[in-house]
Amino acid sequence: MPAGRTVKNMNKRNELPVGVFDSGIGGLTVAREIMRQMPREKIVYFGDTARVPYGSKSKETICTYSEQIVRFLLSQEVKAIVVACNTASAYALPQIEPHCPVPIIGVVEPGARTAVRATKVGKVGVIGTKATISSGIYDRCIRDIRPGTQVLGRACPLFVPLVEEGLWEDPVTDEIARRYLLELMNEGIDTLILGCTHYPLIRKTIARIVGPDVQLVNPAYETAMELQALLERENLLASEAPSLGSAESQYRFYVSDMAEQFKTFANSIIKYGILSAKTIRIDQY
Amino acid sequence: MPAGRTVKNMNKRNELPVGVFDSGIGGLTVAREIMRQMPREKIVYFGDTARVPYGSKSKETICTYSEQIVRFLLSQEVKAIVVACNTASAYALPQIEPHCPVPIIGVVEPGARTAVRATKVGKVGVIGTKATISSGIYDRCIRDIRPGTQVLGRACPLFVPLVEEGLWEDPVTDEIARRYLLELMNEGIDTLILGCTHYPLIRKTIARIVGPDVQLVNPAYETAMELQALLERENLLASEAPSLGSAESQYRFYVSDMAEQFKTFANSIIKYGILSAKTIRIDQY
Repeated sequence: MPAGRTVKNMNKRNELPVGVFDSGIGGLTVAREIMRQMPREKIVYFGDTARVPYGSKSKETICTYSEQIVRFLLSQEVKAIVVACNTASAYALPQIEPHCPVPIIGVVEPGARTAVRATKVGKVGVIGTKATISSGIYDRCIRDIRPGTQVLGRACPLFVPLVEEGLWEDPVTDEIARRYLLELMNEGIDTLILGCTHYPLIRKTIARIVGPDVQLVNPAYETAMELQALLERENLLASEAPSLGSAESQYRFYVSDMAEQFKTFANSIIKYGILSAKTIRIDQY
Repeated sequence: MPAGRTVKNMNKRNELPVGVFDSGIGGLTVAREIMRQMPREKIVYFGDTARVPYGSKSKETICTYSEQIVRFLLSQEVKAIVVACNTASAYALPQIEPHCPVPIIGVVEPGARTAVRATKVGKVGVIGTKATISSGIYDRCIRDIRPGTQVLGRACPLFVPLVEEGLWEDPVTDEIARRYLLELMNEGIDTLILGCTHYPLIRKTIARIVGPDVQLVNPAYETAMELQALLERENLLASEAPSLGSAESQYRFYVSDMAEQFKTFANSIIKYGILSAKTIRIDQY
Protein backbone atom coordinates (compact mmCIF):
# COMPACT_ATOMS: atom_id res chain seq x y z
CA MET A 1 0.00 0.00 0.00
CA PRO A 2 1.52 3.41 -0.94
CA ALA A 3 2.40 5.59 2.03
CA GLY A 4 0.19 8.38 0.68
CA ARG A 5 -2.92 6.24 1.13
CA THR A 6 -2.27 5.75 4.82
CA VAL A 7 -1.65 9.44 5.39
CA LYS A 8 -4.82 10.30 3.53
CA ASN A 9 -6.84 7.82 5.61
CA MET A 10 -5.32 9.17 8.79
CA ASN A 11 -6.21 12.69 7.76
CA LYS A 12 -9.70 11.62 6.93
CA ARG A 13 -10.05 10.06 10.37
CA ASN A 14 -8.76 13.26 11.94
CA GLU A 15 -11.53 15.23 10.26
CA LEU A 16 -14.26 13.01 11.73
CA PRO A 17 -16.45 14.60 14.40
CA VAL A 18 -16.23 14.16 18.15
CA GLY A 19 -19.36 12.62 19.68
CA VAL A 20 -20.73 14.35 22.79
CA PHE A 21 -23.75 13.14 24.73
CA ASP A 22 -25.88 14.00 27.72
CA SER A 23 -29.27 13.09 29.12
CA GLY A 24 -30.56 16.38 27.70
CA ILE A 25 -29.41 19.96 27.42
CA GLY A 26 -26.84 20.12 30.24
CA GLY A 27 -24.04 18.66 28.12
CA LEU A 28 -24.25 21.72 25.91
CA THR A 29 -22.08 23.48 28.52
CA VAL A 30 -19.39 20.89 27.72
CA ALA A 31 -19.94 21.15 23.94
CA ARG A 32 -19.62 24.94 24.27
CA GLU A 33 -16.22 24.54 25.97
CA ILE A 34 -15.01 22.20 23.21
CA MET A 35 -16.13 24.73 20.59
CA ARG A 36 -14.27 27.51 22.42
CA GLN A 37 -11.06 25.60 23.02
CA MET A 38 -10.93 23.56 19.80
CA PRO A 39 -12.59 25.57 17.04
CA ARG A 40 -11.44 23.14 14.32
CA GLU A 41 -13.25 20.15 15.75
CA LYS A 42 -16.59 18.98 14.40
CA ILE A 43 -19.16 17.81 16.94
CA VAL A 44 -22.09 15.41 16.83
CA TYR A 45 -24.15 16.06 19.95
CA PHE A 46 -26.88 13.79 21.25
CA GLY A 47 -29.32 14.84 24.02
CA ASP A 48 -31.64 12.13 25.35
CA THR A 49 -34.58 14.51 25.78
CA ALA A 50 -37.17 11.70 25.59
CA ARG A 51 -35.78 9.98 28.68
CA VAL A 52 -34.29 12.92 30.59
CA PRO A 53 -33.47 13.13 33.50
CA TYR A 54 -30.94 10.37 34.29
CA GLY A 55 -30.04 11.66 37.74
CA SER A 56 -32.99 10.06 39.53
CA LYS A 57 -32.67 6.69 37.76
CA SER A 58 -30.84 3.42 38.40
CA LYS A 59 -27.37 2.37 37.33
CA GLU A 60 -28.83 -0.35 35.10
CA THR A 61 -31.15 2.01 33.25
CA ILE A 62 -28.42 4.65 32.87
CA CYS A 63 -26.07 1.99 31.40
CA THR A 64 -28.69 0.68 28.96
CA TYR A 65 -29.47 4.20 27.74
CA SER A 66 -25.81 5.23 27.49
CA GLU A 67 -24.93 2.09 25.51
CA GLN A 68 -27.68 2.86 23.00
CA ILE A 69 -26.34 6.39 22.60
CA VAL A 70 -22.75 5.20 22.11
CA ARG A 71 -24.01 2.84 19.36
CA PHE A 72 -25.78 5.79 17.72
CA LEU A 73 -22.68 8.00 17.90
CA LEU A 74 -20.51 5.23 16.44
CA SER A 75 -23.00 4.96 13.56
CA GLN A 76 -22.22 8.64 12.94
CA GLU A 77 -18.52 7.74 12.58
CA VAL A 78 -17.18 9.76 15.48
CA LYS A 79 -13.46 9.58 16.23
CA ALA A 80 -13.87 9.98 20.00
CA ILE A 81 -16.70 10.27 22.52
CA VAL A 82 -17.22 12.64 25.44
CA VAL A 83 -19.74 11.55 28.06
CA ALA A 84 -20.90 15.07 28.92
CA CYS A 85 -23.14 13.96 31.77
CA ASN A 86 -21.92 13.35 35.29
CA THR A 87 -24.47 10.62 36.00
CA ALA A 88 -23.59 8.67 32.84
CA SER A 89 -19.87 9.25 33.50
CA ALA A 90 -20.35 7.86 37.01
CA TYR A 91 -22.29 4.73 36.11
CA ALA A 92 -21.96 3.92 32.41
CA LEU A 93 -18.42 4.99 31.43
CA PRO A 94 -16.64 2.26 33.42
CA GLN A 95 -18.84 -0.35 31.70
CA ILE A 96 -18.56 1.07 28.20
CA GLU A 97 -14.87 2.05 28.10
CA PRO A 98 -13.36 -1.46 27.90
CA HIS A 99 -15.19 -2.37 24.68
CA CYS A 100 -15.54 1.04 23.02
CA PRO A 101 -13.73 1.07 19.64
CA VAL A 102 -12.88 4.80 19.88
CA PRO A 103 -11.36 6.77 22.79
CA ILE A 104 -14.02 7.80 25.30
CA ILE A 105 -13.78 10.18 28.28
CA GLY A 106 -16.20 11.47 30.90
CA VAL A 107 -16.47 14.63 32.97
CA VAL A 108 -15.78 13.18 36.41
CA GLU A 109 -12.01 12.58 36.23
CA PRO A 110 -11.21 16.02 34.82
CA GLY A 111 -13.40 17.63 37.48
CA ALA A 112 -11.78 15.59 40.24
CA ARG A 113 -8.26 16.50 39.08
CA THR A 114 -9.06 20.22 39.03
CA ALA A 115 -10.60 20.06 42.49
CA VAL A 116 -7.54 18.33 43.96
CA ARG A 117 -5.31 21.06 42.51
CA ALA A 118 -7.64 23.79 43.82
CA THR A 119 -8.21 22.76 47.43
CA LYS A 120 -5.85 24.12 50.06
CA VAL A 121 -7.50 22.69 53.15
CA GLY A 122 -8.08 19.27 51.57
CA LYS A 123 -11.88 19.48 51.84
CA VAL A 124 -13.81 19.27 48.59
CA GLY A 125 -17.59 19.56 48.21
CA VAL A 126 -19.42 17.90 45.32
CA ILE A 127 -22.97 18.70 44.25
CA GLY A 128 -24.84 16.65 41.66
CA THR A 129 -27.89 14.51 40.98
CA LYS A 130 -29.02 11.79 43.37
CA ALA A 131 -27.48 9.12 41.14
CA THR A 132 -24.12 10.87 40.78
CA ILE A 133 -23.78 11.54 44.51
CA SER A 134 -24.88 8.07 45.61
CA SER A 135 -22.48 6.49 43.11
CA GLY A 136 -19.61 7.91 45.21
CA ILE A 137 -17.61 8.34 42.00
CA TYR A 138 -16.10 11.76 42.80
CA ASP A 139 -15.12 10.50 46.23
CA ARG A 140 -13.25 7.50 44.76
CA CYS A 141 -11.68 9.54 41.97
CA ILE A 142 -10.42 12.29 44.27
CA ARG A 143 -9.00 9.86 46.85
CA ASP A 144 -7.26 7.96 44.04
CA ILE A 145 -5.50 11.17 43.02
CA ARG A 146 -4.75 12.41 46.54
CA PRO A 147 -5.55 10.02 49.39
CA GLY A 148 -6.63 11.79 52.55
CA THR A 149 -8.67 14.45 50.79
CA GLN A 150 -12.07 14.81 52.43
CA VAL A 151 -14.93 14.69 49.94
CA LEU A 152 -18.41 15.83 50.97
CA GLY A 153 -21.25 15.10 48.55
CA ARG A 154 -24.74 16.61 48.40
CA ALA A 155 -27.52 15.71 45.97
CA CYS A 156 -29.43 18.76 44.69
CA PRO A 157 -32.44 17.28 42.85
CA LEU A 158 -34.28 20.60 42.39
CA PHE A 159 -31.43 22.41 40.61
CA VAL A 160 -32.11 20.78 37.23
CA PRO A 161 -35.86 21.59 37.20
CA LEU A 162 -35.11 25.14 38.42
CA VAL A 163 -32.58 25.63 35.60
CA GLU A 164 -34.99 24.19 33.05
CA GLU A 165 -37.76 26.47 34.34
CA GLY A 166 -35.44 29.42 33.68
CA LEU A 167 -35.11 30.50 37.33
CA TRP A 168 -31.36 31.08 37.00
CA GLU A 169 -31.49 34.26 39.08
CA ASP A 170 -34.40 34.00 41.46
CA PRO A 171 -35.08 34.17 45.21
CA VAL A 172 -36.49 30.63 45.11
CA THR A 173 -33.28 29.27 43.57
CA ASP A 174 -31.31 31.22 46.22
CA GLU A 175 -33.38 29.67 49.00
CA ILE A 176 -33.05 26.12 47.64
CA ALA A 177 -29.29 26.64 47.07
CA ARG A 178 -28.90 27.85 50.66
CA ARG A 179 -30.56 24.68 51.98
CA TYR A 180 -28.48 22.40 49.79
CA LEU A 181 -25.16 24.14 50.44
CA LEU A 182 -25.37 25.13 54.11
CA GLU A 183 -24.09 21.84 55.44
CA LEU A 184 -21.13 21.75 53.03
CA MET A 185 -20.24 25.31 54.06
CA ASN A 186 -20.38 24.40 57.73
CA GLU A 187 -17.98 21.53 57.07
CA GLY A 188 -15.42 24.07 55.88
CA ILE A 189 -14.97 23.11 52.22
CA ASP A 190 -12.85 25.51 50.13
CA THR A 191 -13.61 23.92 46.75
CA LEU A 192 -16.96 22.93 45.24
CA ILE A 193 -17.35 20.75 42.15
CA LEU A 194 -20.38 21.57 40.00
CA GLY A 195 -20.98 17.86 39.41
CA CYS A 196 -23.89 18.19 37.00
CA THR A 197 -23.67 19.84 33.62
CA HIS A 198 -26.74 21.98 34.33
CA TYR A 199 -25.16 23.69 37.31
CA PRO A 200 -22.78 26.06 35.50
CA LEU A 201 -25.95 27.81 34.31
CA ILE A 202 -26.72 28.83 37.92
CA ARG A 203 -23.07 29.38 38.76
CA LYS A 204 -23.71 32.98 39.84
CA THR A 205 -26.34 31.94 42.36
CA ILE A 206 -24.13 29.18 43.75
CA ALA A 207 -21.14 31.55 43.96
CA ARG A 208 -23.22 34.14 45.83
CA ILE A 209 -24.34 31.54 48.40
CA VAL A 210 -20.93 29.95 49.04
CA GLY A 211 -19.04 33.26 48.98
CA PRO A 212 -15.63 34.21 47.59
CA ASP A 213 -13.61 31.78 49.75
CA VAL A 214 -14.95 28.70 47.99
CA GLN A 215 -13.59 28.00 44.54
CA LEU A 216 -16.12 26.57 42.07
CA VAL A 217 -14.92 23.85 39.71
CA ASN A 218 -16.73 23.47 36.40
CA PRO A 219 -15.64 20.11 34.93
CA ALA A 220 -16.70 21.26 31.43
CA TYR A 221 -13.62 23.43 31.05
CA GLU A 222 -11.19 20.76 32.17
CA THR A 223 -12.97 18.08 30.10
CA ALA A 224 -12.40 20.07 26.91
CA MET A 225 -8.69 20.41 27.86
CA GLU A 226 -8.52 16.68 28.45
CA LEU A 227 -10.18 15.96 25.12
CA GLN A 228 -7.57 18.10 23.39
CA ALA A 229 -4.72 16.24 25.12
CA LEU A 230 -6.32 12.91 24.20
CA LEU A 231 -6.73 13.80 20.53
CA GLU A 232 -3.14 15.06 20.40
CA ARG A 233 -1.86 11.87 22.01
CA GLU A 234 -3.87 9.70 19.59
CA ASN A 235 -2.85 11.87 16.64
CA LEU A 236 -6.50 12.62 15.99
CA LEU A 237 -6.66 16.44 16.06
CA ALA A 238 -8.58 18.01 13.18
CA SER A 239 -6.34 19.96 10.88
CA GLU A 240 -8.76 21.59 8.49
CA ALA A 241 -9.78 25.13 9.36
CA PRO A 242 -13.58 25.42 9.55
CA SER A 243 -15.09 27.29 6.64
CA LEU A 244 -16.77 30.59 7.44
CA GLY A 245 -20.43 30.42 8.44
CA SER A 246 -20.29 26.66 8.64
CA ALA A 247 -21.72 26.20 12.15
CA GLU A 248 -24.57 24.09 10.81
CA SER A 249 -22.30 21.58 9.07
CA GLN A 250 -19.64 21.67 11.75
CA TYR A 251 -22.01 21.05 14.65
CA ARG A 252 -24.79 18.47 14.31
CA PHE A 253 -27.35 18.07 17.07
CA TYR A 254 -29.60 15.06 17.60
CA VAL A 255 -32.20 14.53 20.30
CA SER A 256 -34.70 11.82 21.16
CA ASP A 257 -37.55 14.34 21.54
CA MET A 258 -38.58 18.02 21.45
CA ALA A 259 -36.13 19.12 18.78
CA GLU A 260 -37.59 22.62 18.49
CA GLN A 261 -37.35 23.36 22.20
CA PHE A 262 -33.82 21.95 22.28
CA LYS A 263 -32.82 24.13 19.34
CA THR A 264 -34.08 27.27 21.06
CA PHE A 265 -32.19 26.40 24.21
CA ALA A 266 -29.01 25.46 22.33
CA ASN A 267 -29.06 28.73 20.43
CA SER A 268 -29.45 30.66 23.68
CA ILE A 269 -26.26 29.25 25.19
CA ILE A 270 -24.09 28.53 22.14
CA LYS A 271 -23.25 31.55 20.04
CA TYR A 272 -21.71 29.93 16.98
CA GLY A 273 -24.37 30.55 14.37
CA ILE A 274 -27.86 29.13 14.04
CA LEU A 275 -28.02 25.51 15.05
CA SER A 276 -30.67 22.97 14.16
CA ALA A 277 -31.56 19.64 15.75
CA LYS A 278 -32.99 16.37 14.46
CA THR A 279 -35.09 13.85 16.37
CA ILE A 280 -34.15 10.15 16.26
CA ARG A 281 -35.58 7.00 17.92
CA ILE A 282 -32.72 6.21 20.29
CA ASP A 283 -34.25 3.00 21.70
CA GLN A 284 -33.75 1.41 18.28
CA TYR A 285 -29.95 1.58 18.63
CA MET B 1 -70.78 -25.61 24.45
CA PRO B 2 -72.59 -26.08 27.78
CA ALA B 3 -74.03 -22.90 29.25
CA GLY B 4 -72.05 -23.44 32.45
CA ARG B 5 -68.80 -22.97 30.56
CA THR B 6 -69.76 -19.52 29.33
CA VAL B 7 -70.86 -18.37 32.77
CA LYS B 8 -67.65 -19.68 34.25
CA ASN B 9 -65.61 -17.83 31.61
CA MET B 10 -67.55 -14.65 32.24
CA ASN B 11 -66.96 -14.95 35.94
CA LYS B 12 -63.32 -15.61 35.33
CA ARG B 13 -63.12 -12.48 33.20
CA ASN B 14 -64.78 -10.48 35.99
CA GLU B 15 -62.06 -11.56 38.38
CA LEU B 16 -59.27 -10.31 36.12
CA PRO B 17 -57.40 -7.21 37.32
CA VAL B 18 -57.82 -3.64 36.18
CA GLY B 19 -54.70 -2.16 34.58
CA VAL B 20 -53.68 1.30 35.80
CA PHE B 21 -50.71 3.24 34.46
CA ASP B 22 -48.88 6.49 34.90
CA SER B 23 -45.51 7.97 33.96
CA GLY B 24 -44.39 7.27 37.53
CA ILE B 25 -45.79 7.53 41.02
CA GLY B 26 -48.54 10.13 40.50
CA GLY B 27 -51.08 7.57 39.27
CA LEU B 28 -50.96 5.96 42.70
CA THR B 29 -53.43 8.66 43.79
CA VAL B 30 -55.85 7.19 41.24
CA ALA B 31 -55.07 3.59 42.22
CA ARG B 32 -55.70 4.56 45.85
CA GLU B 33 -59.17 5.88 44.94
CA ILE B 34 -60.00 2.66 43.08
CA MET B 35 -58.90 0.64 46.11
CA ARG B 36 -61.08 2.78 48.38
CA GLN B 37 -64.17 2.76 46.20
CA MET B 38 -63.93 -0.78 44.78
CA PRO B 39 -62.22 -2.98 47.35
CA ARG B 40 -63.02 -6.18 45.41
CA GLU B 41 -61.08 -5.17 42.31
CA LYS B 42 -57.58 -6.44 41.62
CA ILE B 43 -55.12 -3.95 40.17
CA VAL B 44 -52.00 -4.24 38.02
CA TYR B 45 -50.22 -0.89 38.22
CA PHE B 46 -47.41 0.19 35.92
CA GLY B 47 -45.27 3.29 36.61
CA ASP B 48 -42.83 4.31 33.85
CA THR B 49 -40.13 5.36 36.30
CA ALA B 50 -37.32 4.88 33.75
CA ARG B 51 -38.75 7.51 31.42
CA VAL B 52 -40.60 9.79 33.85
CA PRO B 53 -41.64 12.62 33.46
CA TYR B 54 -43.97 12.69 30.45
CA GLY B 55 -45.20 16.24 31.01
CA SER B 56 -42.26 17.93 29.32
CA LYS B 57 -42.20 15.59 26.31
CA SER B 58 -43.82 15.49 22.87
CA LYS B 59 -47.12 13.96 21.80
CA GLU B 60 -45.31 11.42 19.64
CA THR B 61 -43.06 10.21 22.45
CA ILE B 62 -45.96 10.07 24.94
CA CYS B 63 -47.99 7.99 22.44
CA THR B 64 -45.12 5.56 21.77
CA TYR B 65 -44.52 5.05 25.49
CA SER B 66 -48.23 4.69 26.32
CA GLU B 67 -48.74 2.12 23.55
CA GLN B 68 -45.90 0.01 24.93
CA ILE B 69 -47.48 0.14 28.39
CA VAL B 70 -50.92 -0.84 27.08
CA ARG B 71 -49.31 -3.85 25.36
CA PHE B 72 -47.66 -4.79 28.65
CA LEU B 73 -50.92 -4.47 30.61
CA LEU B 74 -52.76 -6.57 28.01
CA SER B 75 -50.07 -9.24 28.42
CA GLN B 76 -51.10 -9.25 32.10
CA GLU B 77 -54.70 -10.06 31.05
CA VAL B 78 -56.36 -6.96 32.42
CA LYS B 79 -60.12 -6.56 31.86
CA ALA B 80 -59.97 -2.77 31.59
CA ILE B 81 -57.36 -0.01 31.60
CA VAL B 82 -57.22 3.32 33.42
CA VAL B 83 -54.80 5.89 32.02
CA ALA B 84 -53.98 7.46 35.41
CA CYS B 85 -51.86 10.22 33.93
CA ASN B 86 -53.26 13.46 32.60
CA THR B 87 -50.56 13.89 29.96
CA ALA B 88 -51.07 10.38 28.57
CA SER B 89 -54.85 10.83 28.80
CA ALA B 90 -54.52 14.05 26.80
CA TYR B 91 -52.28 12.77 24.04
CA ALA B 92 -52.31 8.99 23.89
CA LEU B 93 -55.82 7.92 24.91
CA PRO B 94 -57.54 9.24 21.74
CA GLN B 95 -55.03 7.26 19.62
CA ILE B 96 -55.18 4.06 21.65
CA GLU B 97 -58.92 3.84 22.40
CA PRO B 98 -60.14 2.90 18.89
CA HIS B 99 -58.02 -0.26 18.70
CA CYS B 100 -57.84 -1.26 22.37
CA PRO B 101 -59.40 -4.72 22.91
CA VAL B 102 -60.55 -3.87 26.47
CA PRO B 103 -62.41 -0.82 27.77
CA ILE B 104 -60.03 2.06 28.49
CA ILE B 105 -60.64 5.38 30.26
CA GLY B 106 -58.52 8.38 31.20
CA VAL B 107 -58.63 10.99 33.95
CA VAL B 108 -59.45 14.04 31.84
CA GLU B 109 -63.13 13.47 31.04
CA PRO B 110 -64.10 12.63 34.64
CA GLY B 111 -62.23 15.71 35.86
CA ALA B 112 -63.88 17.91 33.23
CA ARG B 113 -67.36 16.66 34.13
CA THR B 114 -66.85 17.33 37.84
CA ALA B 115 -65.54 20.82 37.14
CA VAL B 116 -68.52 21.71 34.98
CA ARG B 117 -70.86 20.61 37.77
CA ALA B 118 -68.86 22.57 40.35
CA THR B 119 -68.45 25.96 38.71
CA LYS B 120 -71.08 28.60 39.42
CA VAL B 121 -69.53 31.50 37.55
CA GLY B 122 -68.57 29.39 34.52
CA LYS B 123 -64.83 30.00 34.92
CA VAL B 124 -62.68 26.92 35.45
CA GLY B 125 -58.93 26.92 36.04
CA VAL B 126 -56.77 23.94 35.05
CA ILE B 127 -53.25 23.30 36.26
CA GLY B 128 -51.04 20.56 34.85
CA THR B 129 -47.80 19.73 33.08
CA LYS B 130 -46.62 21.70 30.05
CA ALA B 131 -47.79 18.90 27.74
CA THR B 132 -51.26 18.59 29.30
CA ILE B 133 -51.89 22.34 29.25
CA SER B 134 -50.60 22.89 25.72
CA SER B 135 -52.71 19.97 24.46
CA GLY B 136 -55.81 22.06 25.29
CA ILE B 137 -57.62 18.82 26.18
CA TYR B 138 -59.43 20.09 29.29
CA ASP B 139 -60.55 23.14 27.37
CA ARG B 140 -62.07 21.02 24.58
CA CYS B 141 -63.60 18.52 26.98
CA ILE B 142 -65.24 21.16 29.18
CA ARG B 143 -66.62 23.14 26.23
CA ASP B 144 -68.02 19.93 24.78
CA ILE B 145 -69.95 19.35 28.00
CA ARG B 146 -71.02 22.96 28.52
CA PRO B 147 -70.21 25.37 25.70
CA GLY B 148 -69.53 28.88 26.94
CA THR B 149 -67.56 27.80 29.99
CA GLN B 150 -64.33 29.75 30.25
CA VAL B 151 -61.29 27.52 30.78
CA LEU B 152 -57.99 29.00 31.92
CA GLY B 153 -54.95 26.75 31.84
CA ARG B 154 -51.59 27.14 33.57
CA ALA B 155 -48.60 24.82 33.32
CA CYS B 156 -46.84 24.27 36.67
CA PRO B 157 -43.62 22.44 35.75
CA LEU B 158 -42.02 22.74 39.20
CA PHE B 159 -44.88 21.09 41.11
CA VAL B 160 -43.85 17.53 40.19
CA PRO B 161 -40.18 17.95 41.23
CA LEU B 162 -41.28 19.72 44.44
CA VAL B 163 -43.65 16.84 45.28
CA GLU B 164 -40.97 14.27 44.49
CA GLU B 165 -38.49 16.18 46.67
CA GLY B 166 -40.99 15.86 49.53
CA LEU B 167 -41.64 19.62 49.90
CA TRP B 168 -45.39 19.10 50.27
CA GLU B 169 -45.64 21.73 53.02
CA ASP B 170 -42.89 24.24 52.52
CA PRO B 171 -42.46 28.01 52.03
CA VAL B 172 -40.78 27.37 48.67
CA THR B 173 -43.77 25.37 47.42
CA ASP B 174 -46.06 28.15 48.71
CA GLU B 175 -44.05 30.76 46.81
CA ILE B 176 -44.03 28.77 43.56
CA ALA B 177 -47.76 28.00 43.93
CA ARG B 178 -48.49 31.71 44.42
CA ARG B 179 -46.67 32.55 41.18
CA TYR B 180 -48.42 29.83 39.22
CA LEU B 181 -51.90 30.52 40.59
CA LEU B 182 -52.01 34.32 40.90
CA GLU B 183 -53.12 34.92 37.35
CA LEU B 184 -55.89 32.31 37.53
CA MET B 185 -57.12 33.89 40.76
CA ASN B 186 -57.14 37.33 39.20
CA GLU B 187 -59.27 35.99 36.37
CA GLY B 188 -61.94 35.05 38.92
CA ILE B 189 -62.08 31.25 38.61
CA ASP B 190 -64.24 29.48 41.22
CA THR B 191 -63.12 25.94 40.34
CA LEU B 192 -59.61 24.54 39.85
CA ILE B 193 -58.85 21.16 38.30
CA LEU B 194 -55.74 19.44 39.70
CA GLY B 195 -54.83 18.26 36.21
CA CYS B 196 -51.80 16.17 37.17
CA THR B 197 -51.92 13.12 39.40
CA HIS B 198 -49.08 14.46 41.56
CA TYR B 199 -50.99 17.56 42.57
CA PRO B 200 -53.42 16.02 45.09
CA LEU B 201 -50.33 15.43 47.22
CA ILE B 202 -49.88 19.22 47.61
CA ARG B 203 -53.60 19.84 47.76
CA LYS B 204 -53.33 21.61 51.14
CA THR B 205 -50.79 24.11 49.81
CA ILE B 206 -52.87 24.80 46.72
CA ALA B 207 -56.04 25.19 48.82
CA ARG B 208 -54.30 27.66 51.13
CA ILE B 209 -53.17 29.80 48.18
CA VAL B 210 -56.47 29.85 46.26
CA GLY B 211 -58.60 30.23 49.41
CA PRO B 212 -61.97 28.77 50.39
CA ASP B 213 -63.94 30.28 47.48
CA VAL B 214 -62.24 28.12 44.86
CA GLN B 215 -63.30 24.49 44.73
CA LEU B 216 -60.52 22.02 43.95
CA VAL B 217 -61.34 19.13 41.63
CA ASN B 218 -59.30 15.95 41.99
CA PRO B 219 -60.02 13.82 38.90
CA ALA B 220 -58.81 10.69 40.73
CA TYR B 221 -62.02 10.45 42.76
CA GLU B 222 -64.30 10.86 39.77
CA THR B 223 -62.19 8.52 37.64
CA ALA B 224 -62.68 5.70 40.14
CA MET B 225 -66.45 6.40 40.06
CA GLU B 226 -66.39 6.28 36.27
CA LEU B 227 -64.45 3.02 36.29
CA GLN B 228 -67.11 1.50 38.54
CA ALA B 229 -69.91 2.65 36.22
CA LEU B 230 -68.00 1.27 33.22
CA LEU B 231 -67.41 -2.14 34.79
CA GLU B 232 -71.08 -2.32 35.82
CA ARG B 233 -72.20 -1.42 32.31
CA GLU B 234 -69.90 -4.02 30.77
CA ASN B 235 -70.85 -6.60 33.39
CA LEU B 236 -67.23 -6.81 34.46
CA LEU B 237 -67.38 -6.04 38.20
CA ALA B 238 -65.38 -8.41 40.38
CA SER B 239 -67.59 -10.52 42.59
CA GLU B 240 -65.14 -12.38 44.77
CA ALA B 241 -64.42 -10.83 48.13
CA PRO B 242 -60.68 -10.29 48.63
CA SER B 243 -59.13 -12.69 51.10
CA LEU B 244 -57.76 -11.22 54.30
CA GLY B 245 -54.18 -9.97 54.18
CA SER B 246 -54.06 -10.41 50.43
CA ALA B 247 -52.86 -6.93 49.45
CA GLU B 248 -49.78 -8.37 47.81
CA SER B 249 -51.70 -10.72 45.52
CA GLN B 250 -54.58 -8.30 44.94
CA TYR B 251 -52.37 -5.36 43.94
CA ARG B 252 -49.39 -5.94 41.66
CA PHE B 253 -46.98 -3.11 40.92
CA TYR B 254 -44.56 -2.94 38.01
CA VAL B 255 -42.12 -0.19 37.17
CA SER B 256 -39.48 0.37 34.51
CA ASP B 257 -36.86 1.43 37.10
CA MET B 258 -36.13 2.08 40.78
CA ALA B 259 -38.48 -0.54 42.20
CA GLU B 260 -37.26 -0.08 45.78
CA GLN B 261 -37.81 3.66 45.80
CA PHE B 262 -41.22 3.21 44.19
CA LYS B 263 -42.19 0.65 46.79
CA THR B 264 -41.30 2.99 49.65
CA PHE B 265 -43.31 5.78 48.11
CA ALA B 266 -46.28 3.51 47.32
CA ASN B 267 -46.36 2.23 50.88
CA SER B 268 -46.35 5.79 52.20
CA ILE B 269 -49.52 6.76 50.34
CA ILE B 270 -51.40 3.45 50.04
CA LYS B 271 -52.31 1.86 53.34
CA TYR B 272 -53.50 -1.56 52.22
CA GLY B 273 -50.73 -3.78 53.47
CA ILE B 274 -47.13 -4.08 52.39
CA LEU B 275 -46.76 -3.70 48.65
CA SER B 276 -43.88 -4.82 46.49
CA ALA B 277 -42.85 -3.78 42.97
CA LYS B 278 -41.09 -5.52 40.08
CA THR B 279 -38.93 -3.92 37.40
CA ILE B 280 -39.58 -4.76 33.73
CA ARG B 281 -38.00 -3.57 30.44
CA ILE B 282 -40.96 -1.63 29.04
CA ASP B 283 -39.29 -0.70 25.74
CA GLN B 284 -39.42 -4.36 24.77
CA TYR B 285 -43.23 -4.30 24.60
